[in-house]
Amino acid sequence: LKTLPVFEDIVKARIRIAGKALVTPLLESPVINTRSGGRVLLKAESLQKTGSFKFRGASHFIARLDEQTRKQGVVAYSSGNHAQAVSAAAQQAGVPAVIVMPEDAPRVKIEGTRFYGAQIVFYNRLTQSREEIAATIAEESAAVLLPPYDHPFTMAGQGTVGLELVEQAAALDEALDAVLIPCSGGGLAAGCSIAMKAQSPHTAIYCVEPTGFDDTARSLAAGRRVFIEEPGGATICDALMLPTPGELTFPVLLANLQGGLVVTDTEVQQAMAIAFHHLKLVLEPGGAVALAAVLSGKLDCRGKTVGVVLSGGNVDTGMFCAALRNAEQLD
Amino acid sequence: LKTLPVFEDIVKARIRIAGKALVTPLLESPVINTRSGGRVLLKAESLQKTGSFKFRGASHFIARLDEQTRKQGVVAYSSGNHAQAVSAAAQQAGVPAVIVMPEDAPRVKIEGTRFYGAQIVFYNRLTQSREEIAATIAEESAAVLLPPYDHPFTMAGQGTVGLELVEQAAALDEALDAVLIPCSGGGLAAGCSIAMKAQSPHTAIYCVEPTGFDDTARSLAAGRRVFIEEPGGATICDALMLPTPGELTFPVLLANLQGGLVVTDTEVQQAMAIAFHHLKLVLEPGGAVALAAVLSGKLDCRGKTVGVVLSGGNVDTGMFCAALRNAEQLD
Repeated sequence: LKTLPVFEDIVKARIRIAGKALVTPLLESPVINTRSGGRVLLKAESLQKTGSFKFRGASHFIARLDEQTRKQGVVAYSSGNHAQAVSAAAQQAGVPAVIVMPEDAPRVKIEGTRFYGAQIVFYNRLTQSREEIAATIAEESAAVLLPPYDHPFTMAGQGTVGLELVEQAAALDEALDAVLIPCSGGGLAAGCSIAMKAQSPHTAIYCVEPTGFDDTARSLAAGRRVFIEEPGGATICDALMLPTPGELTFPVLLANLQGGLVVTDTEVQQAMAIAFHHLKLVLEPGGAVALAAVLSGKLDCRGKTVGVVLSGGNVDTGMFCAALRNAEQLD
Repeated sequence: LKTLPVFEDIVKARIRIAGKALVTPLLESPVINTRSGGRVLLKAESLQKTGSFKFRGASHFIARLDEQTRKQGVVAYSSGNHAQAVSAAAQQAGVPAVIVMPEDAPRVKIEGTRFYGAQIVFYNRLTQSREEIAATIAEESAAVLLPPYDHPFTMAGQGTVGLELVEQAAALDEALDAVLIPCSGGGLAAGCSIAMKAQSPHTAIYCVEPTGFDDTARSLAAGRRVFIEEPGGATICDALMLPTPGELTFPVLLANLQGGLVVTDTEVQQAMAIAFHHLKLVLEPGGAVALAAVLSGKLDCRGKTVGVVLSGGNVDTGMFCAALRNAEQLD
């Protein structure tokens, strides 16, 4: 079960989630092209169901379960995008779902998760372990734990982003010189890299993380999983704060990636503002890191065709408008 | 030249603008469906090049010119979406363009228009007539005036929105019971209505306007073009402030539309906030009026499949964040 997915698994995953997850559009802006000096093709996963790529992994995971297991349901822990994705994918498949969420999770994310019908179990971040609570629920109800990234089914579902990206670029007569992918646990980057190594072997693949949470960049440089004990600062990229890459995802990343790029919160806010003005898209901070890397010149895009994954758009009003305001002051 | 377009003209327009304008996605949100009680399919023209449907009309108009006329260029007057659309469509076709803009137009719209390479001629709103200036330029340079709505080429190009909407709904196995279209001069609504009457004759078509600027709703009720001398108030929908429907568009609207719906600025702000939270789209006020009509129950959508055109996304930070804030206070 824990065999790493191969290209064929991602092709099959796409068939399994067809009509469930959306084929998101590949967008472009002449302003972004001009600023970067290249042709930047933007995969708008923020327009995916529940506002992030996480829906693909959850939907595919559930599609892989047998009928008996589906009846027993799924359980997941998450304070953010994975919670809503599992809740919605489970509802769509008629599968019961329990989501373990911190009791201080943002109201909007709790409501989003509840909207799709999942049962929510709250825990205290300081005194309780969400892994233990989820494990107990899974044991008692015989429900299956649906991991946010470190599972072959999740990775294969998330990797369909890469499959679509290569094909949509090809439809524009473009081969991708590079692709930039936001990264936390690494499921999206690992899954996409498997798809791209098979379909577009000359594409240089980079993951992108926020400053202080660049565990994957450091791990890639070190050749082994680095664990960041003390991030030495905060980030607005709430979706990208894991301290170390996944056990399953990291070997894939190490084999397939060119390296890891790192962006500051200010660069992320500027990217959110560019997406607002020139793409008319709402991006959450974590969903904008790859675009931020392009706009801040972390990768030289001049003369190149570069794919960028915009991985999510779940951001509240205050955070979003603060980003637009700060970006304008710097302009 | 001034013969009203028929269905075939819109089909041909689509072929002429293929690869120039984008086929924009048809989006959906379970939250919007739940609130309206129907299935609401949203045509995201805010993701069109230059951020509005205007690009389709401009691109098609230029495609219809002969080579000699193209060399002489096009001229247009607009302070907003049409200015950017003509500038970009002209650049794409290698045609010179002059845009007559008020000297107090928002900086962002001036910069957007300039970015695509058009020459800008400024005028004073209080002392000069933009029509006269544009006519003089057209005469002196032999350039063609590119009207924002009241021309068969413009209407046919804008009508491709309706063609795509019907087909994208059909791909979801849905026939549209109703469609709601933002309206100012009426080019978009008229063009779409021609496409829909041919392809989906049972769809009830409504135009939507902001309170105080409901000249089309009043004209449809009166059976003749009504001119609103004094709007008796302001609106945030800067794209929808014309005082009367077009001379060419109105007969089409009168023949094809069920009627006109009217929404308040507050309803528009709430729709912008719903689009932000649940579609992850940036909509400008005028681009959100049709969604506002659905969400405020101006049309009973229960049990129906309803198409909604989201016509544009060109809004500045201040206006956008004020809308989100006001909507939250009402929530």
